[in-house]
Amino acid sequence: MAKKIKGYAAKSEKSPLAPFTFERRDVLENDVQIEILFCGICHSDLHSARNEWKNTLYPIVPGHEIVGKVTAVGSKVKSFKVGDLAAVGCLVDSCRTCSYCEQSLEQYCENGFVLTYNGIDKRHGNSITYGGYSTQIIVDEKFVLHVPKKFKEKDLPGVAPLLCAGITTYSPLKHWKVGKNSKVGVVGLGGLGHMAIKLAHAMGAKVVLFTTSKNKVEDAKRLGADEVVLSKDANEMKKHLRSFDFIINTVAAAHNLDPYIELLKSDGTLCLVGAPPTPHPSPNVTNLIFGRRSLAGSLIGGLKETQEMLDFCAEHSITSDIEIIPIQKINEAYERMLKSDVKYRFVIDSASFKNEALEA
Amino acid sequence: MAKKIKGYAAKSEKSPLAPFTFERRDVLENDVQIEILFCGICHSDLHSARNEWKNTLYPIVPGHEIVGKVTAVGSKVKSFKVGDLAAVGCLVDSCRTCSYCEQSLEQYCENGFVLTYNGIDKRHGNSITYGGYSTQIIVDEKFVLHVPKKFKEKDLPGVAPLLCAGITTYSPLKHWKVGKNSKVGVVGLGGLGHMAIKLAHAMGAKVVLFTTSKNKVEDAKRLGADEVVLSKDANEMKKHLRSFDFIINTVAAAHNLDPYIELLKSDGTLCLVGAPPTPHPSPNVTNLIFGRRSLAGSLIGGLKETQEMLDFCAEHSITSDIEIIPIQKINEAYERMLKSDVKYRFVIDSASFKNEALEA
Repeated sequence: MAKKIKGYAAKSEKSPLAPFTFERRDVLENDVQIEILFCGICHSDLHSARNEWKNTLYPIVPGHEIVGKVTAVGSKVKSFKVGDLAAVGCLVDSCRTCSYCEQSLEQYCENGFVLTYNGIDKRHGNSITYGGYSTQIIVDEKFVLHVPKKFKEKDLPGVAPLLCAGITTYSPLKHWKVGKNSKVGVVGLGGLGHMAIKLAHAMGAKVVLFTTSKNKVEDAKRLGADEVVLSKDANEMKKHLRSFDFIINTVAAAHNLDPYIELLKSDGTLCLVGAPPTPHPSPNVTNLIFGRRSLAGSLIGGLKETQEMLDFCAEHSITSDIEIIPIQKINEAYERMLKSDVKYRFVIDSASFKNEALEA
Repeated sequence: MAKKIKGYAAKSEKSPLAPFTFERRDVLENDVQIEILFCGICHSDLHSARNEWKNTLYPIVPGHEIVGKVTAVGSKVKSFKVGDLAAVGCLVDSCRTCSYCEQSLEQYCENGFVLTYNGIDKRHGNSITYGGYSTQIIVDEKFVLHVPKKFKEKDLPGVAPLLCAGITTYSPLKHWKVGKNSKVGVVGLGGLGHMAIKLAHAMGAKVVLFTTSKNKVEDAKRLGADEVVLSKDANEMKKHLRSFDFIINTVAAAHNLDPYIELLKSDGTLCLVGAPPTPHPSPNVTNLIFGRRSLAGSLIGGLKETQEMLDFCAEHSITSDIEIIPIQKINEAYERMLKSDVKYRFVIDSASFKNEALEA
């Protein structure tokens, strides 16, 4: 008999998140059962809970930045044992057979990956997946990450956001070969932007943050930015014309991309990691042609690369800057997130679920 | 005393091309003097003659697809001698010292290249450059190409368009590593598109032409396309979803790019080689993110690569499909070009200048 799990769910696009009791599947032979310790709060959680992408299946239990402790493993599980620390990111399954899955690029699976929440789990009766705003999750071993031993217990809340904000920025930085001789721009200082600064800095790049807000200058420098440019200051921008190898744009609101494309060297790439609700103004094609520049996008990262990112972060003592909240403050946290009133990620302390009762 | 040269020029944006007598500089120590045999007619010639890019300096003598015979060389010229066949493309100079010029990426010169026509030649008294609609041109050796000996005399008119249409398509195909295992799309069958088909086919790729016009199907196959897709047929398009490594888009009119971006595999690139007069609709960012796809641009090619392209074409017996005209028909050719009434490039037979008189 499956055990009842405490979670928080939105039951419609107009409902706030509220206590929700549900069941997980039994622990199958390849499964790892994880007691959730911490779960980061991603903007996607809010978009999904409120059905802003028009694809939400209710009730929805968000959360895909999960760190916890293994409490049971299936008979065929080899790389996890009870008591291990483990993590789960945005994906809990994929087809495992297409050319992308074979390269551990599960995020580009040809046959459709299974999201950690609001996904349809074809291997398990087309059930809807429930995420990390809960006390426990059961995931196939192949989609569970190891939390490197170099992280101490106090680090664990800040590890959780690495599973989405971390890999979303790490993957393109690696793909476009950011390293010691790179000049890298980061557009926007939020959950993703603050990770991009830390990661690019640790990779040895010269890092420039672009922001519209003067009061982020000092913090960006503390996080590892070598320079901060106020993007509305055309003269400041002009000083950096044709000088960037790579710019990662974390701003998901529609804005003019041309001023950033103009800052790229020849063969440079402006990579978008957020999709705006309304289109960006159409980029100027001449800027792309004169300089063989690229406008690209990138989506999270595959399992192998996510593990590599966790190991890299442990090696470089990188975690997310966070504010811990109890699950009971989730709706308030969403409102504050909308106002960018968080430095730089909320993380749910799952111990707070003990104050909730199981529904009958 | 500099010799008077016969050419054709537009004297204002409303003037047709008409006979124009001018002088070239003396042959300097690094210069190659070329008697022009053939000059291809590029869309850029028309845009420039009519000031459609709002940067034309009048009078303008267009023409940057030049093949001819060396008639004199400066004292320091090493690689050309009188009687050699030689070619000149879109550029006649660049700074030669920036990091791009050092890599023979003169087309991305940081300090500004000098266009073959309508350029400002800083090294020679800020004179305005005059192009290949003329009987003779004098160019620094570094910007003169060798016409491979494998080309026969009868090939020479079809070699001329390689200098712009050829390199503009060859360069991105090479940069994005098109080869035997590639599936390559070519959007549009005109001067650039027909070269892209021939070149990608010769590189060993599977080539698919996208066109809006049914009556181009047979010709595209003759040129080397393995398949032709009518781009307005959504069902036909759908069959190719996520299957292309690279698509080169030669259409310079504004159109929706999303249907092509959707056809790219993950890590695929849609490369634009034409800038539309009005912007393309803004590309869908989700299409870029889901698949780590890129929208890029590319501009002609550097001198080293242009020579490589000429050698490749000679090796593979590739020339442009052309229609030869006398210079006296240039204005008519422009009108026909606007109606895409040419297969696939007009080339001026410079011998026709003998029917023109020198102005006093």
